[in-house]
Amino acid sequence: MNNFTYFNPTKVHFGKGQIATLKQEITPNSRILMTYGGGSIKKNGVYDQVIDALKDCSVFEFGGIEPNPHYETLTKAIELAKQEKVDLILAVGGGSVIDGSKLIAAGACYEGDYWDIITTGGNCVKKALPLGCVLTLPATGSEMNRNGVVTRAATQDKLSFGSDLVRPAFSILDPETTYSLPARQIANGAVDSFVHIMEQYMTYPVKAKVSDRFAESLLLNILEDGPTALEKPNDYEVRANLMWTATMALNGTLKNGVPSDWATHAIGHELTALFGLDHAQTLAVVMPSLWRYKKEQKKGKLLQYANRVLNITSGNEDEQIELAIQKTEEFFVLMGNPTTLSAYGLDESAIPAVKQKLIEHGMLALGEHGDITPDDVVEILKLAL
Amino acid sequence: MNNFTYFNPTKVHFGKGQIATLKQEITPNSRILMTYGGGSIKKNGVYDQVIDALKDCSVFEFGGIEPNPHYETLTKAIELAKQEKVDLILAVGGGSVIDGSKLIAAGACYEGDYWDIITTGGNCVKKALPLGCVLTLPATGSEMNRNGVVTRAATQDKLSFGSDLVRPAFSILDPETTYSLPARQIANGAVDSFVHIMEQYMTYPVKAKVSDRFAESLLLNILEDGPTALEKPNDYEVRANLMWTATMALNGTLKNGVPSDWATHAIGHELTALFGLDHAQTLAVVMPSLWRYKKEQKKGKLLQYANRVLNITSGNEDEQIELAIQKTEEFFVLMGNPTTLSAYGLDESAIPAVKQKLIEHGMLALGEHGDITPDDVVEILKLAL
Repeated sequence: MNNFTYFNPTKVHFGKGQIATLKQEITPNSRILMTYGGGSIKKNGVYDQVIDALKDCSVFEFGGIEPNPHYETLTKAIELAKQEKVDLILAVGGGSVIDGSKLIAAGACYEGDYWDIITTGGNCVKKALPLGCVLTLPATGSEMNRNGVVTRAATQDKLSFGSDLVRPAFSILDPETTYSLPARQIANGAVDSFVHIMEQYMTYPVKAKVSDRFAESLLLNILEDGPTALEKPNDYEVRANLMWTATMALNGTLKNGVPSDWATHAIGHELTALFGLDHAQTLAVVMPSLWRYKKEQKKGKLLQYANRVLNITSGNEDEQIELAIQKTEEFFVLMGNPTTLSAYGLDESAIPAVKQKLIEHGMLALGEHGDITPDDVVEILKLAL
Repeated sequence: MNNFTYFNPTKVHFGKGQIATLKQEITPNSRILMTYGGGSIKKNGVYDQVIDALKDCSVFEFGGIEPNPHYETLTKAIELAKQEKVDLILAVGGGSVIDGSKLIAAGACYEGDYWDIITTGGNCVKKALPLGCVLTLPATGSEMNRNGVVTRAATQDKLSFGSDLVRPAFSILDPETTYSLPARQIANGAVDSFVHIMEQYMTYPVKAKVSDRFAESLLLNILEDGPTALEKPNDYEVRANLMWTATMALNGTLKNGVPSDWATHAIGHELTALFGLDHAQTLAVVMPSLWRYKKEQKKGKLLQYANRVLNITSGNEDEQIELAIQKTEEFFVLMGNPTTLSAYGLDESAIPAVKQKLIEHGMLALGEHGDITPDDVVEILKLAL
C-alpha cells in the first residue's frame, strides 16, 4: 500500500426531495450565480425546486454551458460573477456544468488571464468563490472532487485542472432528477464512471485491499445496474445505486494507497477535442486497446478483474485476460459505445493529429509508470482501428 | 436506499513516516495538550517522533488515559487544558485516548457540568478546541468520526456522545506504529472493527449496493488479515490493510443509505461497565446470540453474508445461516475472544443488572427497528450463557 493523504470535506445530501436542503446550505439574502446547461432542468422540475429554495436570495442565471464546457462560454460567466459580485456559484446540472463552474468560481477571484488556471493545472488558484452543486447526471464525480475539465474550442484543447479551493462545499444528489435523462446520457455516464474506477484499479498489482475491493464493488454495481437503468428508467433503487456509485468512483476513496493510470482519459480528451466524439465514446475506444498493449505490466490486475468481477476462472491466463477485455468491450457496446475508431468514421489518418496534440500538451509520459509515450499512443490507437 | 447526509472533513495522512506531517498541520508556536495512555508510545518511538515534530510549540502532557477512558481522569485533563489555555488537543494513542480527548476538547470550552456532554449525547457542545490524532491502534475508527465513548467508573456508566465539533481536524496513521502492540490489542481491534461493520450491515435487507459491497469488502479484509497480523506482527501490508480497514469501517462511509443496529454495542457497554470485560469480548458474546434471536428479521442479510463473505452456498437457508453464525464465532475465538458469558466467569445471575442499567440509561428500544427491549436483551444474553 502506498502512502497517501485523504481529504474530502464536501457535504453530500443524497436522496428523494433533498433539493429542499439547499435552504440550509445557503446564507440568507446572498447573491448567487446559478449555472446550468441546455435547459433540461426547466422541463424536469429541478429549476423550479432550486428557485423555490433560493427565494430569499438574489439569483443571477447563466444557462447554456455546453457538454465539454467551452472556455469561451465560461469566461462570460466569470465576467457576470464579477459584475454582480456574487457570493456563491450554484451549479445545477451534470459534470460539464460543475466542471465549468469550478473554473467560474476560481476565475471570479483571479485577475490574470483565466487560461492560466488551465495551463498551471490549477496551481495559480489562490482564492475562489464557494461552489455548491445540484447534480442531475451521474457520471463524472465532479460533485465531490477538486478537478475539472475545460475545452478551448478555438484551439481544440481539452485539459484538466484541480484545486482544493474549487471543491464543492456541498452537493445535492436526488436520483429522481435523473429519470428524465436521455438514455444516451445515462449510458455514457455509466461508461465514464466505469472507466474512472479502472484508471485507479487496472494498474500493476499493489497490495491495497481496501481500494481493490471497493473498486470491484463499484464495477459490479455498474455492470449490474447500467443496463437495468436503460430498461427501467424510473427504478429509484437502480438510479440511486448508479448515482452514488459514480460519486464514490471519483471522490478520492479509490485512489488511497494505489497508483493511478489516467492514460485513457488523456488520450480520450484529444479525440474529443479533435473529432468531437463523446467523452464516453473515446474511453470505450482507448481503454481495451491500451489494456492489450500493456497486458504484461497489467497482467496481475487483469487476472484479478477477470476472476473477481467477471467470474472468469477457466482457461489459461492469456485466455482469461482476453475474455475479460472482450466482456468489457461487450459492456461498452451494450451501453451504446462502440470500441473502434472506425465505428466513429475515423481511420489511421486520424492518429497523427492525436500524437501531435499530446506532444503540444506535454503529455509525453502517460500511465501509472509514466512509460506511455506519444509513439506508444499511436500503437494503441492502431489496435483500436 | 435510504436518504442520507455524508460529511467527513477529517484530513488523513496515512503511511510510513507520516508522523513527520504533523509539522504541516500545526500552527507554529501554538500551545498543545498532548494526551496519551499508559506510556507505550515512549517505548515504541512514537513519543519521540511527535515531540520532534512539535519542537517549536509549547507542549503540555497528560498521560495515563486508561482503556474505556474514565470520566474522572478526563476531567483532570480538561482542567489542565483550561489552565494552560491550549490551542489544540493532540491525542496520541488508540481509540480510548482519542475518545477521551474528544471529551477534553469539548469540556475545555464548556462551563457547566462536563457530564452534561455525555447525558445530552453531545448536543450541549457549542464549541470545542480543535483535535488532532496520531493513531497507534487500529480498532475504533474514532480517528475519523464524530463520536466518543466514556466511562464514569464511580457509577458504572459507559456511554457515548457525538458532535461535529469534536471530529478530528487531522489524523496521522502510520501502520509501523502498530508493530509493537500486544497481540491481544491487535486481536481485539480486529473484532471491534468487524462488529462496527456488522452494526451497519447486518440489518434487514435494504437495496444499498455500495454500502453492502463495501461492508463485505472490509469484512473479507479482516477475516483474511486479522489472523495474519497475529502470525506476522511486522508485515507492513497486513498492518496497513487492517489499519485502513478499521478507519473505513466507522468513518460514515458504510452507513450511507442503510439503517444501523448498534444493539450489540449498547449491550456490550453495560457488560464492560458492570463486569470489566474488554470491549471486544462483550461484542463477541452478544452479537452471535443477537443474530440468532433476530434471525427472522435479519434473514436476508444473514444469507447474503453467508454467501458473499463466507462462501457458504450449500444447505437450506437455516443451515446456511447457522453455519455463518458458527463461522463468525470461530473467528472471534481465533482472535482470542470466546463467545459465551461463562467463558468470562459470568452466569445467569449477571443478567438482571444489565437489564437494570439499560433501563436506567433509557435504552428501551434498541436495534435498527427499535424493537429490542430490555426483556429481549435478557433473552439474548440467556442464549449467550
